[in-house]
Amino acid sequence: MEPDLSLLDEYLADHGHDGYLVDAASTDSTQRYISGFDAPDPFVTLYTPDRTALLVSSLEYGRAKTESRAERVVRLADYDYRELVADHGATEATARVVAAFLDDEGVESVAAPERFPLGSADTLRERGVTVEPERTDVVTTIRATKTEEEVANVREAQAANEEAMRAAETLLADATVEDGTLVYEGEPLTAERVKEEIEVTLLRNGCALDETIVACGADAADPHNRGSGPIRANEPVIVDIFPRSKATKYHADMTRTFAKGDASETVREWFETTDEARRAALDAVEPGATGAEVHAAVCDVYEAAGHPTLRSDPTTETGFIHSTGHGVGLDVHERPRVSLDGEELEPGHVITIEPGLYDPDVGGVRIEDIVVVTEDGYENLTSYPVELVV
Amino acid sequence: MEPDLSLLDEYLADHGHDGYLVDAASTDSTQRYISGFDAPDPFVTLYTPDRTALLVSSLEYGRAKTESRAERVVRLADYDYRELVADHGATEATARVVAAFLDDEGVESVAAPERFPLGSADTLRERGVTVEPERTDVVTTIRATKTEEEVANVREAQAANEEAMRAAETLLADATVEDGTLVYEGEPLTAERVKEEIEVTLLRNGCALDETIVACGADAADPHNRGSGPIRANEPVIVDIFPRSKATKYHADMTRTFAKGDASETVREWFETTDEARRAALDAVEPGATGAEVHAAVCDVYEAAGHPTLRSDPTTETGFIHSTGHGVGLDVHERPRVSLDGEELEPGHVITIEPGLYDPDVGGVRIEDIVVVTEDGYENLTSYPVELVV
Repeated sequence: MEPDLSLLDEYLADHGHDGYLVDAASTDSTQRYISGFDAPDPFVTLYTPDRTALLVSSLEYGRAKTESRAERVVRLADYDYRELVADHGATEATARVVAAFLDDEGVESVAAPERFPLGSADTLRERGVTVEPERTDVVTTIRATKTEEEVANVREAQAANEEAMRAAETLLADATVEDGTLVYEGEPLTAERVKEEIEVTLLRNGCALDETIVACGADAADPHNRGSGPIRANEPVIVDIFPRSKATKYHADMTRTFAKGDASETVREWFETTDEARRAALDAVEPGATGAEVHAAVCDVYEAAGHPTLRSDPTTETGFIHSTGHGVGLDVHERPRVSLDGEELEPGHVITIEPGLYDPDVGGVRIEDIVVVTEDGYENLTSYPVELVV
Repeated sequence: MEPDLSLLDEYLADHGHDGYLVDAASTDSTQRYISGFDAPDPFVTLYTPDRTALLVSSLEYGRAKTESRAERVVRLADYDYRELVADHGATEATARVVAAFLDDEGVESVAAPERFPLGSADTLRERGVTVEPERTDVVTTIRATKTEEEVANVREAQAANEEAMRAAETLLADATVEDGTLVYEGEPLTAERVKEEIEVTLLRNGCALDETIVACGADAADPHNRGSGPIRANEPVIVDIFPRSKATKYHADMTRTFAKGDASETVREWFETTDEARRAALDAVEPGATGAEVHAAVCDVYEAAGHPTLRSDPTTETGFIHSTGHGVGLDVHERPRVSLDGEELEPGHVITIEPGLYDPDVGGVRIEDIVVVTEDGYENLTSYPVELVV
């Protein structure tokens, strides 16, 4: 994929920089995006409006030449790296090689990501190179707007995600209930067992994932609790799956809440209100609307139903206690924000809509879809049904 | 686990720093080690010889208090974070909060990891805090020496690894051969299919993994090629598995090379010589020996057998073209090095021994064990047999 980096070109021109320098492994999504290369250990990418150049270890040299989007690939070994390591240690040696590499490229001043490594920056500065952290999120802003190819990547990951959600729901549906606890194949059905099934299903469908949330009862009342232990009947179980395609590295993201057996009156009301909030948010999604407006639509529904939100009470620990959503791409959380300070939505933005309610005495309910903003509204990339009771 | 950070205390005293500051997610192993906390988004850890303090988002606050090793946990929200974001944007706001947090802790000068984020460092420096990258690898040196608990974590991951290797070998053994290609359940057996089986087996045994190598033929001749496509009979297949325990985050690492059917005379000789190199390296492992000496033992065997090594020819692209091994722990590649510049081995070091030979015309052969250095030698944590033909 050839990204449109014209906003970055403008930034470099406005700030008098010759280029944009990245020093990171491809686990850093900006590195992956700018370099077009997938490598497990840190390497250096120099982007200039004229061309992209990579500085890699000898081990990555052949792959970098054929797989990256760089016009030029050089090796650490091209700069007497071994001798420098012997004299100065590996980190200092690498920084000196980078300085020589920038000199070769005629580059005296670079912008760098906020999280560019301090050690490299200091060494480059000592050698007369200007290194300034880029503080306007220009690359993450560029990354927020997806090409058709990127949307297709998310769609593919979401297809695997729905298979995995189906596997989880099937486990819950097939379980029996004994003394209030779910039982499957003669053993208590645990959150860990459901997660294992989800993760195996994702692997069988070409996806990996960092974490999965299968949280029941009080666990579910903490939005970041990933859940553990036996699953109980008549309590809401939040299942939040955010896989990454192993081939493309793009993510999907979806949450459903299930209750095995009979949900309480309160949980049913929470579920209906949360689904209403989800639909209100979706109605608000269109180019020109802001993430803040979409978030406000959710707060409106919850507050009208009498639930606290962080808008009505910034210190509340129950009710709607997180943002409405976030961008999804190479990172599972990226631009744009769909929150109190959410920016304007544009066609090609891929975002989640995920209202939820939480209270340790009740548990948690969350419903999350993933959608792409289109020229005239949005397309929902989620087709999984929204049903509480299994 | 309570790590022994006395070397870090010495470093701070020697350099006149009040503390050691980390700003990273727990995917950064130094962050995980120093904080004892697992969080997916960046947070801040301040280590001082007196105590460890964490600065986290409200979402992580509850977990951080119960799960981290910090004596003190504070929230961004405790420092008017929302107002600062409104006025200055999220990154600058966070950096200002960190400055206020350091001020509260009475800290004016910190060491930080080489890869500490430049943007935060610059903001702290503008506010009068001294931030210096720590360039002597003191934390990675501390991390290299494992406690018994850490060795047990590696051992547990290695047990899962052996299950996965067994699953891969079984697939190769059960396959039939048609027109020189392996066939399993009516379809060509591909590297992707074997990797899927490995990864599912690891998941079923509590491990995740970043990547797996199943590489055949010319793919196997490039040590970083992960392999793809149909597996051919009579060619060496390198299977390199480096899983991470989902519970403890510690890694294991093992490689075996298999040939289905009849390996060529050359491949048999490579395999025998590589196993001889492995045994020679193991014989050299003991406290006081250096990683360089262990590496030399491997080079001696290969060079005596007429194979080029990077020691005999630094530019060779065939023969033994990588290091003998590396430390394994929270990172799959960490200290100590077992290479040309390998440092002295100490009890508690967990290292790989992984000699190999490569040539695009032949393929690749690699055999890798993982061992822990003990008071009087080493214990091999690997029990998987070393056999070429399946």
